[in-house]
Amino acid sequence: MPRAVVLLSGGLDSCVTAAVARKAGNDIHCLSFEYGQRHARELESAAAVAKALGAAEHLVLRLDLAKLGGSALTDAAIAVPTGRDERAMAASIPVTYVPARNTVMLAHALAFAEVRDADSIWVGVNALDYSGYPDCRPEYLEAFERMANVATKRAVEGRPVRIEAPLVRLGKADIVRLGESLRAPIHLTWSCYEGGEYACGVCDSCLLRRKGFQEAGLVDPIRYE
Amino acid sequence: MPRAVVLLSGGLDSCVTAAVARKAGNDIHCLSFEYGQRHARELESAAAVAKALGAAEHLVLRLDLAKLGGSALTDAAIAVPTGRDERAMAASIPVTYVPARNTVMLAHALAFAEVRDADSIWVGVNALDYSGYPDCRPEYLEAFERMANVATKRAVEGRPVRIEAPLVRLGKADIVRLGESLRAPIHLTWSCYEGGEYACGVCDSCLLRRKGFQEAGLVDPIRYE
Repeated sequence: MPRAVVLLSGGLDSCVTAAVARKAGNDIHCLSFEYGQRHARELESAAAVAKALGAAEHLVLRLDLAKLGGSALTDAAIAVPTGRDERAMAASIPVTYVPARNTVMLAHALAFAEVRDADSIWVGVNALDYSGYPDCRPEYLEAFERMANVATKRAVEGRPVRIEAPLVRLGKADIVRLGESLRAPIHLTWSCYEGGEYACGVCDSCLLRRKGFQEAGLVDPIRYE
Repeated sequence: MPRAVVLLSGGLDSCVTAAVARKAGNDIHCLSFEYGQRHARELESAAAVAKALGAAEHLVLRLDLAKLGGSALTDAAIAVPTGRDERAMAASIPVTYVPARNTVMLAHALAFAEVRDADSIWVGVNALDYSGYPDCRPEYLEAFERMANVATKRAVEGRPVRIEAPLVRLGKADIVRLGESLRAPIHLTWSCYEGGEYACGVCDSCLLRRKGFQEAGLVDPIRYE
């Protein structure tokens, strides 16, 4: 069975991505990061999702991104915005943007793929529904793949790695529908930027998720405050 | 004064690279990594080099590469080769190769550059004198730069970052001469793969360094066993 490295955040998108990778016939090696997030809730979700999908392994690496600062997700002094409409979200790069985060995470995934001899790396980025993150665009992923294929021993030996981002051009409602059709363990995911007992329902991430379920005509299995 | 991020390993090449970045009129923000190296000696050297060059700061980030395994530099079970000639070194990718290490380090440098608003990232990689590391080649650095310039907020706003590798096409003797001409603090560097009181003199890294000084007709200021 071909081996795939899957970046798993614990959120909806990476859960559906992992289900797509599994459905495509891969043995999945999941990779998550502890990078000074405000809460550990999403890592618990990532572990549960990996287990539910029968992953070969789930590795959690620690990143020192918080030391660099510059993001609301790793710096408690910057407030996470709430109650914004999509136009406001799309108007600028959000404070929840973590500088070069996807590059740092994909770089680790590339190392993991080389050590495990995996021929694909799966990432749940999404450019269409919600963006403002430069490192969620198809042109970024293509540039990363080109770089990856001159960077490693595997590539030099003629065995390239593919960057797979099956959700990159999907809207949130499409992602929800795809997840449901694959019976992805969406009930185990955590999308909220806050770390309460239940999802807050009002941060950008909760708002987009709820709107996605609403448009898909499906019920979100997680509980909101 | 323009700001530059400099990757500083504590070795000869990154010391000379930092001196070039300084000479070019940059305020230098040095970045080193603790990644499960067999010894901490090179980080002490990195700190001393940063101080000697009047760096604006020296940040040390922890990387979890050892958890991935696969390299003699982070896995005590794999022996570091000694006493090899250059043909043997060049014949294959060495066991001291750390999978995707430069990609992981440059990814962090990219994050650091964005947070500090630096317009260049300096790295002491070298393709000519000694290689076998796919991520030390000019084509790799060019691919990384292209990826970096679609990855970040700065780039999207039209302010690209340059990847500067002034030693990439130099031989070790040229690097030694360049360092001496810039009065780089070479006496503070540590190149040896082992962590003894003095450099071992027989690992690949020591052998190349000694040969470089010999060919340059200069005396290596560090002490060997």
